[in-house]
Amino acid sequence: MKKFINDPKAFVPEMLKGLALANPDTLTYDPKYNLIVRADAPNNDKVSIIQGSGSGHEPAHVMIVGKGMLDAACPGDVFAAPPTDFVVEAARRVKSDKGVLLLVNNYTGDKMAFEMAEELAAAEGIKVRTLFIDDDVAVKDSLYTIGRRGVAGNFFVIKAVGAAAEAGKDLDEIVRIGEKVNAVTRTMGVALTACTPPAKGEPLFEIGDDEIEVGIGIHGEPGRARQKWVPANEIVDLLLEPIVSDIPYSSGDDVALMVNGLGGTPISELYLLYGIAHEKLAAQGITPTRSYVGEYCTSLDMAGASITLVKLDDEIRELLEAPAEIPIRTF
Amino acid sequence: MKKFINDPKAFVPEMLKGLALANPDTLTYDPKYNLIVRADAPNNDKVSIIQGSGSGHEPAHVMIVGKGMLDAACPGDVFAAPPTDFVVEAARRVKSDKGVLLLVNNYTGDKMAFEMAEELAAAEGIKVRTLFIDDDVAVKDSLYTIGRRGVAGNFFVIKAVGAAAEAGKDLDEIVRIGEKVNAVTRTMGVALTACTPPAKGEPLFEIGDDEIEVGIGIHGEPGRARQKWVPANEIVDLLLEPIVSDIPYSSGDDVALMVNGLGGTPISELYLLYGIAHEKLAAQGITPTRSYVGEYCTSLDMAGASITLVKLDDEIRELLEAPAEIPIRTF
Repeated sequence: MKKFINDPKAFVPEMLKGLALANPDTLTYDPKYNLIVRADAPNNDKVSIIQGSGSGHEPAHVMIVGKGMLDAACPGDVFAAPPTDFVVEAARRVKSDKGVLLLVNNYTGDKMAFEMAEELAAAEGIKVRTLFIDDDVAVKDSLYTIGRRGVAGNFFVIKAVGAAAEAGKDLDEIVRIGEKVNAVTRTMGVALTACTPPAKGEPLFEIGDDEIEVGIGIHGEPGRARQKWVPANEIVDLLLEPIVSDIPYSSGDDVALMVNGLGGTPISELYLLYGIAHEKLAAQGITPTRSYVGEYCTSLDMAGASITLVKLDDEIRELLEAPAEIPIRTF
Repeated sequence: MKKFINDPKAFVPEMLKGLALANPDTLTYDPKYNLIVRADAPNNDKVSIIQGSGSGHEPAHVMIVGKGMLDAACPGDVFAAPPTDFVVEAARRVKSDKGVLLLVNNYTGDKMAFEMAEELAAAEGIKVRTLFIDDDVAVKDSLYTIGRRGVAGNFFVIKAVGAAAEAGKDLDEIVRIGEKVNAVTRTMGVALTACTPPAKGEPLFEIGDDEIEVGIGIHGEPGRARQKWVPANEIVDLLLEPIVSDIPYSSGDDVALMVNGLGGTPISELYLLYGIAHEKLAAQGITPTRSYVGEYCTSLDMAGASITLVKLDDEIRELLEAPAEIPIRTF
């Protein structure tokens, strides 16, 4: 294993420390609970949004804490749910008169930690709700999940509820918005290589030099099928068909189209996939009117990509277009 | 080779097509000359900025065309200089009464193409200057270079001259600013793996499972030394020492600190490196007051990173802080 690490056990804390050092005016880092919190939180005039999940999916979620997005991120170790008491502590740090929303990708471990944390926080008098995200069409149940998995589509739920919270909407309304966005968002991914968790020190699974895993999970969980590599045009078909037919998306729809890199794939290849997907959708009368190309929810150093569609209406579009401020500086 | 590609020969055009489809309001793509141009160019009230280089370094430079950055990018094929007539055509497309600045990383092939293009454009009556960027401290001369190479530090030159152009500065003043930023910017990189150019279909060089290449070039050119992998703390020393001692940067300096991924390294590891570099600089009295962590200038799918320092003064800081608009959407 060749990575930029020191002690594998310190991987997540060292990353979070770097993140805080790079953003001293906007973020605080609490090493005791592994929390990244907005420096200006809590704000009693808005609902606070917390996302928790295992680490290894960066920039999700620690690097999207900021105005109009998350108030706090509560990461676990790599691919592991955060401890329940860390989630409760996160809720304490950002508790607000308007309430706290916990966003959780639908994995059994995360679900247990966050449901328990919601109960404990509520018992302390914190007004709190939880919303589960399950946008992955690849598999019905999986290695770590009952029901669908939550993957890169969580980005759109976060953006929408973050914007709604910033606009002062109340907790019930924000839950409605989050559920609405989740209901029109679908994702499927493909892996070209396995990822290597620092503590494991070797690839999480075997995959041949000429093979791809279609429907891969963001923790390296198996997808729908292992098959031979095919050109990008065919890979886009393998991802788009199950997505489009799922809701379904249909002619006349306006969509946001995301091509998300899984950590080891260069942005050049992601734009190549974007162009193919855009044209294939347009040919079906489905119009991508908002584009997202880059890394949003990764799987460590895995070479691979996922495609996400979001069916847009005026309400969702306005929330996605709202201003936000996150640590990642592109210019 | 497993990549998201169709025909390797079509890799660059398909990427550019995807980029244009994702940004229909702000960018235009000319497949004949491989140009990406701002949709609102030319603007006779500002100097136009063009960067050319080989492809394979994305987001540099085709994905940083936009207000306050580049007016046009003129990419060659992967790791190859663009043809001279493509550069001349780029100058024609964005020619302005205030002039055109060609930005070029210092590689022999690019230098020849752009110097010839400058002559030809000038002969057509286009007011044009060329500025070479050479921020890489790793090697004095290299496989493709007489003198130092231009690498990720070009980002800061582009940002500064882009902001100055947007503010209406004249061509001489913009050249002065570009030269000033280049003179206070230094970079060094390290590779953990080789990159695989699509047309070659296999890694560009051999590197052992336990080896790193210190001082790597962005086209896979050899650096200063091949050595055994060492932990991140030591890797940061290997990169920072030659950078800091070069200008030198010294106690009391405020700097911008960039940790740039080379394409295959996840942002988690880049933030880990950032934290280490930030603290090591601070211990020497050199204060990083502006942070850049992510992918700015890559080498296809290479796992690796570079560190860049920019010595800041009020003029440079103001130019780096100026607003800009580029295709990459992070929220």
